[in-house]
Amino acid sequence: MSTTRLEAFSDAVIAVAITLLVLDIKVPEASSTSALWHSLGNRWPNYASYAVSFLVIGIIWSNHHSLVDVIARVTRPLALLNVLLLMSIVLIPFSTALLARYLQEGGGRSHVAAAVYSLTFVLMSVGFSSVWVYASRGGRLLVPGFTDDEIRRLTIGFSLGLPIYAVTVGVAFISAPACLALHAVLAVYYALAQRGGSIQPPAAMGDQAMP
Amino acid sequence: MSTTRLEAFSDAVIAVAITLLVLDIKVPEASSTSALWHSLGNRWPNYASYAVSFLVIGIIWSNHHSLVDVIARVTRPLALLNVLLLMSIVLIPFSTALLARYLQEGGGRSHVAAAVYSLTFVLMSVGFSSVWVYASRGGRLLVPGFTDDEIRRLTIGFSLGLPIYAVTVGVAFISAPACLALHAVLAVYYALAQRGGSIQPPAAMGDQAMP
Amino acid sequence: MSTTRLEAFSDAVIAVAITLLVLDIKVPEASSTSALWHSLGNRWPNYASYAVSFLVIGIIWSNHHSLVDVIARVTRPLALLNVLLLMSIVLIPFSTALLARYLQEGGGRSHVAAAVYSLTFVLMSVGFSSVWVYASRGGRLLVPGFTDDEIRRLTIGFSLGLPIYAVTVGVAFISAPACLALHAVLAVYYALAQRGGSIQPPAAMGDQAMP
Amino acid sequence: MSTTRLEAFSDAVIAVAITLLVLDIKVPEASSTSALWHSLGNRWPNYASYAVSFLVIGIIWSNHHSLVDVIARVTRPLALLNVLLLMSIVLIPFSTALLARYLQEGGGRSHVAAAVYSLTFVLMSVGFSSVWVYASRGGRLLVPGFTDDEIRRLTIGFSLGLPIYAVTVGVAFISAPACLALHAVLAVYYALAQRGGSIQPPAAMGDQAMP
Repeated sequence: MSTTRLEAFSDAVIAVAITLLVLDIKVPEASSTSALWHSLGNRWPNYASYAVSFLVIGIIWSNHHSLVDVIARVTRPLALLNVLLLMSIVLIPFSTALLARYLQEGGGRSHVAAAVYSLTFVLMSVGFSSVWVYASRGGRLLVPGFTDDEIRRLTIGFSLGLPIYAVTVGVAFISAPACLALHAVLAVYYALAQRGGSIQPPAAMGDQAMP
Repeated sequence: MSTTRLEAFSDAVIAVAITLLVLDIKVPEASSTSALWHSLGNRWPNYASYAVSFLVIGIIWSNHHSLVDVIARVTRPLALLNVLLLMSIVLIPFSTALLARYLQEGGGRSHVAAAVYSLTFVLMSVGFSSVWVYASRGGRLLVPGFTDDEIRRLTIGFSLGLPIYAVTVGVAFISAPACLALHAVLAVYYALAQRGGSIQPPAAMGDQAMP
Repeated sequence: MSTTRLEAFSDAVIAVAITLLVLDIKVPEASSTSALWHSLGNRWPNYASYAVSFLVIGIIWSNHHSLVDVIARVTRPLALLNVLLLMSIVLIPFSTALLARYLQEGGGRSHVAAAVYSLTFVLMSVGFSSVWVYASRGGRLLVPGFTDDEIRRLTIGFSLGLPIYAVTVGVAFISAPACLALHAVLAVYYALAQRGGSIQPPAAMGDQAMP
Repeated sequence: MSTTRLEAFSDAVIAVAITLLVLDIKVPEASSTSALWHSLGNRWPNYASYAVSFLVIGIIWSNHHSLVDVIARVTRPLALLNVLLLMSIVLIPFSTALLARYLQEGGGRSHVAAAVYSLTFVLMSVGFSSVWVYASRGGRLLVPGFTDDEIRRLTIGFSLGLPIYAVTVGVAFISAPACLALHAVLAVYYALAQRGGSIQPPAAMGDQAMP
């Protein structure tokens, strides 16, 4: 299987998942003008989680693209790992809806929701690392030109997401809004992180690798 | 990242968003033939907002295409701005459903709904201008062949949407149906506006730039 | 704008619309095994309308492809007409759900539902003819090699859908199941209609043109 | 019609269908922290069916790709058979939701749900075999280079899914969880089954052909 088709399919799945996020922003029922303003304003957890998840999935898409760009050929186990990665990404609309529902409740329920939200990203991060580690072991499936040192450096870059997202699971149990804010900060940071500002696979990929 | 992939992903997101509009046209429950006719007819706000939003998103897609056509390469900040633009476009099915729900109520609630509807387009317009301004500053990311004058002219074209959509926010507080009608007129106008009738980037792009 | 992008966007919209059809097949609530069998069996109108609409949209996709294949370039008015065509196609999941809801009720309500269902196809047919007529007038936007005679023959082919679907609106007021069955027969007929069995644009396109 | 477009459309439909699976994982309502943990844990049938169906559709996508890869040209009947195949694939989100709903109920209702779930795969398997058999009869529509022996071997490979999925229908009436587990095992097995680990159409395709 060519990487082109793997990428096109992954792109389509990610595009549908990112768009489904809007289905959780529901039209409020309100019987007066002020009640409508109030209801709309009251849904800030929905808007905030929508924005953060949209941004994160956007970055996942971009990093997935960078990853597939340096893969030369797709084997069955690699395709399977990629399906598992997509499986975790498609869960994000669910965990976003869960967080939006309980963010304002405060207390234990908001912590649970934020923890599940962060766990989805941990899962996604594991999926991402697995695809990379499988593809790069011995450089087997990569495009030519990677040194062992570069692969080691990239493996570290692609594995950083795991401990970082694990930390957000911990933060979830302190404060759900703080957890969401941390995800927002991480997303913007990783969206802009790469030195020089342009994507130049293969060598310049390490700095944007967190997903 | 190649502009091809940015465009393919944006196309897919916009295609899903435009299709989700139909989910707000619900099957009515009716216990007699005349009640069914009545219920179906009664939903004209849903059909009208569906048609207008479908048209607007169709034009956004077309203009997004024209925009990306003159961009030579994608940097991380540009990809981030594009994700923010998509984030505003994907909100349109929500604001369309909100408008359809309150259009017939008249009074304050219909004004709020129409204002939120118009605000989504203001957001989208800001996103569109940001992508263009970032890409064209000093011509850095554009395909070769643009003069400073052309860039200035196009910047004006791409920024016109902002004041125009701001006006529709004002109109929303006078009359929601008038606001929706204005959006319909603007959409048809911009769908057909370009001189000569065909899209020929880069030079001929200015007149179709409003989004 | 290249026809490639118009086609890719149209394909994506049609693909989402055809898949949304499944959302109307809902999981029944049943408190016993026999009640579950019964509920599942009772939903035959949903399965039947799903199957027919899926088939029809599949054929629309195929014919849209044949149509765009012979178009050489896309102008703004043509892109607008194509958006209007897509707007009618995306309505099909709604009209399918309406038909499925009232098919078994019999009497007037089932007639209304079947008429609205057929009307969606009339709309779609109008959209299809408009794209063709606009593109082919004087052969302006077509790929080279069409004679006036061929264009005239194809125009008839592409316009046949309108009277045929108009007839189905009439049949809807006699019997909703008969109307749905007629759509099924028409769909299978047009799916297989072309002489020789393979699609060879431009010349061999006429016989498959009904949508 | 080129196989490229058939494949792009099929990919898009399959991508939407696989992503719609998440819509069945609903946010629970819970009034306390422990109730939320409990509700989330209680939904294991939803997570399990989500995971299995996601995996199966991922493999269908991959096998569909392998199949289309060896087809040289698309005729009308072949396009129709492919639409029928897609029609069965798009049913999977429904049958998955049905299984998730009744898996925990145990007894007859869970057997019915698991049987319907397995029947969707039987349908899909019939669709898959039909596309292959139609395309390969006499090698008419295949890319050059297949011997009669290879075609016979591949026909067996592509037809194996039918009896295997028929067995899962039987297992459904013994135990729904066992049936789901069997689907999981089959999916992982077929995801990894091919000798050598890489996809090399045409000759190496037989072993991955089950769908």
